Amino acid sequence: MAKLQTLPAGMAGAGPSLIESLVGDAEVGALFSDEADLAALLTFEAALAEVQAAIGIIPTVAAEAIAGACREFKPDWSALRQGMVRDGVVGPALVAALRLAVGPQHGPCVHVGATSQDLVDTGLMLRLKTAAALLDARLAALLDDLVALRQAQGAVPLMAHTRMQAALPFTAADKIETWLRPLERHRRRLEEIGPRVFALQLGGPIGVGAAKGEQGAGLVDALATRLGLAPAAPWHTARDGIVELGSLLSLMTGALGKLGQDVALLAQSEVGAVRLAQGGGSSAMAHKSNPVGAEVLVALARFNAGLAGTLHQALVHENERSGAAWTLEWMTLPRMAITAGAALRHARALVSGISFKPLETDHPA
Amino acid sequence: MAKLQTLPAGMAGAGPSLIESLVGDAEVGALFSDEADLAALLTFEAALAEVQAAIGIIPTVAAEAIAGACREFKPDWSALRQGMVRDGVVGPALVAALRLAVGPQHGPCVHVGATSQDLVDTGLMLRLKTAAALLDARLAALLDDLVALRQAQGAVPLMAHTRMQAALPFTAADKIETWLRPLERHRRRLEEIGPRVFALQLGGPIGVGAAKGEQGAGLVDALATRLGLAPAAPWHTARDGIVELGSLLSLMTGALGKLGQDVALLAQSEVGAVRLAQGGGSSAMAHKSNPVGAEVLVALARFNAGLAGTLHQALVHENERSGAAWTLEWMTLPRMAITAGAALRHARALVSGISFKPLETDHPA
Amino acid sequence: MAKLQTLPAGMAGAGPSLIESLVGDAEVGALFSDEADLAALLTFEAALAEVQAAIGIIPTVAAEAIAGACREFKPDWSALRQGMVRDGVVGPALVAALRLAVGPQHGPCVHVGATSQDLVDTGLMLRLKTAAALLDARLAALLDDLVALRQAQGAVPLMAHTRMQAALPFTAADKIETWLRPLERHRRRLEEIGPRVFALQLGGPIGVGAAKGEQGAGLVDALATRLGLAPAAPWHTARDGIVELGSLLSLMTGALGKLGQDVALLAQSEVGAVRLAQGGGSSAMAHKSNPVGAEVLVALARFNAGLAGTLHQALVHENERSGAAWTLEWMTLPRMAITAGAALRHARALVSGISFKPLETDHPA
Amino acid sequence: MAKLQTLPAGMAGAGPSLIESLVGDAEVGALFSDEADLAALLTFEAALAEVQAAIGIIPTVAAEAIAGACREFKPDWSALRQGMVRDGVVGPALVAALRLAVGPQHGPCVHVGATSQDLVDTGLMLRLKTAAALLDARLAALLDDLVALRQAQGAVPLMAHTRMQAALPFTAADKIETWLRPLERHRRRLEEIGPRVFALQLGGPIGVGAAKGEQGAGLVDALATRLGLAPAAPWHTARDGIVELGSLLSLMTGALGKLGQDVALLAQSEVGAVRLAQGGGSSAMAHKSNPVGAEVLVALARFNAGLAGTLHQALVHENERSGAAWTLEWMTLPRMAITAGAALRHARALVSGISFKPLETDHPA
Repeated sequence: MAKLQTLPAGMAGAGPSLIESLVGDAEVGALFSDEADLAALLTFEAALAEVQAAIGIIPTVAAEAIAGACREFKPDWSALRQGMVRDGVVGPALVAALRLAVGPQHGPCVHVGATSQDLVDTGLMLRLKTAAALLDARLAALLDDLVALRQAQGAVPLMAHTRMQAALPFTAADKIETWLRPLERHRRRLEEIGPRVFALQLGGPIGVGAAKGEQGAGLVDALATRLGLAPAAPWHTARDGIVELGSLLSLMTGALGKLGQDVALLAQSEVGAVRLAQGGGSSAMAHKSNPVGAEVLVALARFNAGLAGTLHQALVHENERSGAAWTLEWMTLPRMAITAGAALRHARALVSGISFKPLETDHPA
Repeated sequence: MAKLQTLPAGMAGAGPSLIESLVGDAEVGALFSDEADLAALLTFEAALAEVQAAIGIIPTVAAEAIAGACREFKPDWSALRQGMVRDGVVGPALVAALRLAVGPQHGPCVHVGATSQDLVDTGLMLRLKTAAALLDARLAALLDDLVALRQAQGAVPLMAHTRMQAALPFTAADKIETWLRPLERHRRRLEEIGPRVFALQLGGPIGVGAAKGEQGAGLVDALATRLGLAPAAPWHTARDGIVELGSLLSLMTGALGKLGQDVALLAQSEVGAVRLAQGGGSSAMAHKSNPVGAEVLVALARFNAGLAGTLHQALVHENERSGAAWTLEWMTLPRMAITAGAALRHARALVSGISFKPLETDHPA
Repeated sequence: MAKLQTLPAGMAGAGPSLIESLVGDAEVGALFSDEADLAALLTFEAALAEVQAAIGIIPTVAAEAIAGACREFKPDWSALRQGMVRDGVVGPALVAALRLAVGPQHGPCVHVGATSQDLVDTGLMLRLKTAAALLDARLAALLDDLVALRQAQGAVPLMAHTRMQAALPFTAADKIETWLRPLERHRRRLEEIGPRVFALQLGGPIGVGAAKGEQGAGLVDALATRLGLAPAAPWHTARDGIVELGSLLSLMTGALGKLGQDVALLAQSEVGAVRLAQGGGSSAMAHKSNPVGAEVLVALARFNAGLAGTLHQALVHENERSGAAWTLEWMTLPRMAITAGAALRHARALVSGISFKPLETDHPA
Repeated sequence: MAKLQTLPAGMAGAGPSLIESLVGDAEVGALFSDEADLAALLTFEAALAEVQAAIGIIPTVAAEAIAGACREFKPDWSALRQGMVRDGVVGPALVAALRLAVGPQHGPCVHVGATSQDLVDTGLMLRLKTAAALLDARLAALLDDLVALRQAQGAVPLMAHTRMQAALPFTAADKIETWLRPLERHRRRLEEIGPRVFALQLGGPIGVGAAKGEQGAGLVDALATRLGLAPAAPWHTARDGIVELGSLLSLMTGALGKLGQDVALLAQSEVGAVRLAQGGGSSAMAHKSNPVGAEVLVALARFNAGLAGTLHQALVHENERSGAAWTLEWMTLPRMAITAGAALRHARALVSGISFKPLETDHPA
């Protein structure tokens, strides 16, 4: 075996990796960093304490101490990692560290009635809701771009193609319509499922609630309101909201993959119905102008489609908590959001560089 | 290689195959038979002609001839199969046969302005809407069963399990709640997506509409009303509704797979928290009573989860019609509906036979 | 909702369904019919009895009675279906029926030491081995077709395309080479994995063997030899052979999907590098000639790719037998073999109709 | 929406992220870092130049200059990332930078006859071969662990379970056998497929070879030998080797997922057949000892099964290079190797902590 040249680890520096530059998304990705994760977890614990103080479950002074400790929390990342590996979830190690930071007097008032899944699921929801808003804003911007493209170039005559063959003439506006419509529906879907999906988790150790009876219901409502999430019955084991969101992320990337596929087909040398402002270069053929963004959109769509199938597997959740199914969600859903972010970014860049070229009248139809 | 014994083909007779007996569903399956397919296609053509006559696109007498020919249509199945293989879709062969049946005078008035995809997609939607109603009725019945189970046995004390370990005691009612809730949400989802998904397809050859301008819009509205579908802009290439429905079918089977997984775990010999009325037998161990229905629910959930991922791949649709992506839908979505039907059937049978057994107080927790 | 026209069930008659005409395969499909299944199961029971008689586990007269009963077996399909649903596997009902057919004296000598999984897994292997031989023969024939195509038209100058753009000229022979090579490797793979995959299953009730010690080993060797399968340690719970075979079936359809994708791209109206002998028609555009077979190859590839992922899920097999994982195999692997059969059939038809059209020298490269 | 607390990005420091601590693998992961990627790419370019000098394609002095520049290469990571995004592959930017580093005289001798895909595919193969060796060593070590476990505790009587029910007694040795066997086969598979999969890529711009005729063949052989890879015909578009390897990685994680599933089932509180040295803690229930490693093995198996399906989708490769399918490989295959690495690490830790507990004779069977 050849001795490979080596380069010292870490020399690639602070930016994203090469592959992430292409298929990742810095803005959405940041929401799923450890820092954003921890921040959301601390937000949950502080809010839980404050709401519990308000309804008399813990003393106000304890809640203040907890909120203060959350604000000032200095994580020992190495200890958190060890906890993650030992417990399969960061909750126990974080709660222990937070109790220590709060001190012996009020420490026992941290995380009262709650379980790691309340903490981690709610922390995820806080970030998913932000991610969804971000994706929705990009969808809106892309829709604006497409409307502008239609206005500017919609009258250009093009050849429609069915089953990979020239069919009949239509216009660029007709084509753009087919790209627009599903994206509009995706925005409506996001609006529809939000109140169902972006929900507080507060089920306590076995999912029957973190406090009893009326107090429990009041706690859920107050905490949900405070965190900007929907109040909900515990959903520890019913992951339909999670999977519904994942499916929608794949619907988004699928619609953009279709747009990319179309652009790649229209930009073929022999078709020439689309010219792209920026084509990728080749290391061997200087004349090439490759529709890189269009191809990446197809790859992102197929990747998310696959992850959607994997995420659906996580619906089979054993009893009151499945470490296996839950871990599987962590491996798929955040990546699906990042992939959707990347697709929207690429789609906007691609659309901005499209010039439709009119169909010649003697075109082979 | 051993010479295998042979049995003459066809001797298994009229019923479902052995594997279909277990994982298929006769009632949902019937909606995706060739006969149901053809009936829906003829319903479309007759309705199209009648509505076109009403708004003056074709003569009333032609519409009457077409409707009559649809009612009396005697398919040459062999010719339809040949058309399917040649054209990749049954539309052209069927339209040709129907025109022949209508006769030379009015034959040209068959399928005016429409394309095979209008015919086939609408025909599918007519059946999917029926399938959805059927699945919804089964969901409702299963929910009733679960409510009855909760009423009858909800007070039984059980051990909750998290991460495959005994956690804390709760009750059968708490457990049943976790099965109920996602099913209730699935019914709401079905109600929500119906008006978006069960939509008329009428785009004409390249998806810009089967008739021009106001007449086109009127045609869509009238035909949709007549067929009991939602009016919609052409969605030849935007398959988000199809994939959204498929995702929901997998959400359903996933929730039932979770129920099955729980029952299989609770019915373990050493756990004994659930006793099943009917257990499967073994060819080698007479004492076994296997939770067959529970295991099948898990299998159906995993199968549909996989098909959901495959169906999402079909979102990448080339230009104005992709034979590849469309065929992929045909191979997945009907099967997903059948799988959901099978899962609901198994779940009802399973739930009807559940006896919860009280947790003994000295249980190892 | 519209009242749909109805057609009586069963009127479509004896042939394959419309969709099966396109994506199924009669010859491979026949191997997975109930009749072929039952024939293989009876072959197993007869051979088991004869081999057990030869090494003295059961009397020779009993083995003769069993073999006779297997030859004359008249299945009560309805009872087998009921057994399938009750037990989740046809084994117990079949063994009971066979014992009844053998009669009270020798009935207890049926299926001695074996379990349903031995019966069903071995029965499947007998048919998979036949299916593999059939697919291999088709691969060989397709390779011959491709060699002939290369000989006849290999010199035709074509444009190569990278990343959806014209790249540099090459020849039809160069293109055909890229289709040939993976198919040759697939034949070698099939040869390599055969001795590992097409293996006898004989593990007894819990997979530790159907007979003890040396007698057990002798039994495995003798029965495997008789059935033309590889002797093997019990693999009730280690499904790697099953999944390896499924992966190879998807590798095959993937290579053919690539061929189909290429043909669809080369046959585009604007590219015109391939003309197809038979194109599919359109119900709306008489001038169309659609590359139906090429598109179907892509659909079959994507479908099998998805099923491959699902089949890999079945590797997670609970303890000594998982009804869930096993059922999941039944729902995927036979279909994957049929899909591979269909792809090979379509590929041969497609290749036989390809005419390469020389690249014009002023082509836009 | 709640204002989330924020933590400055980057404060989590140099280690792996929390989730990577659990499901990633530092050692395998390092092979897919940008640094390892670049090192492999430079290894390819240096070796190509040296071999081309040896057979007279470029001057020796040029090869020396290129090898030197490779050794001393100081990457501008930001420029490489920009190239990656622009060209969809790092090749063009890297070759341009390397030519600049080599200088105007010998710069044109860099990458002669080769294309980005030769560079990137071969670079990947160099690392995959190393990864495979690493995984094989872990497989061997795990097999040793299992053999030792069998020796130490194999005589412990256990209850076998079929279809989630107690079946018949067997021993820990019998159970361990079922874990061992597929792992042994995986080692053989790795050995078998190595010479086919770990192959040089050298196809030139359109995959017909980087040099003509005999010189081309000589170049392939010499370069392959030098790099420790198999010589091979160009496989730009025939990705069966890549997908075969990915399938094997999923077979590995599947076998370990089965082991994990078994351990989780045996370690259930009510079953108690396995005691684990280290159980995970709970933030809410101090008495819990969760089989975290076992659950993670199941999650890793299901994740890789899903990625296997996605990777099979990448077999459908358009014409002489598909940017879409290629990018899809990059998003899946390295992750699959890392997941296999993580599974082997967890499996070793898990096996080292297993204590089988003898079945009590009055066990409910």
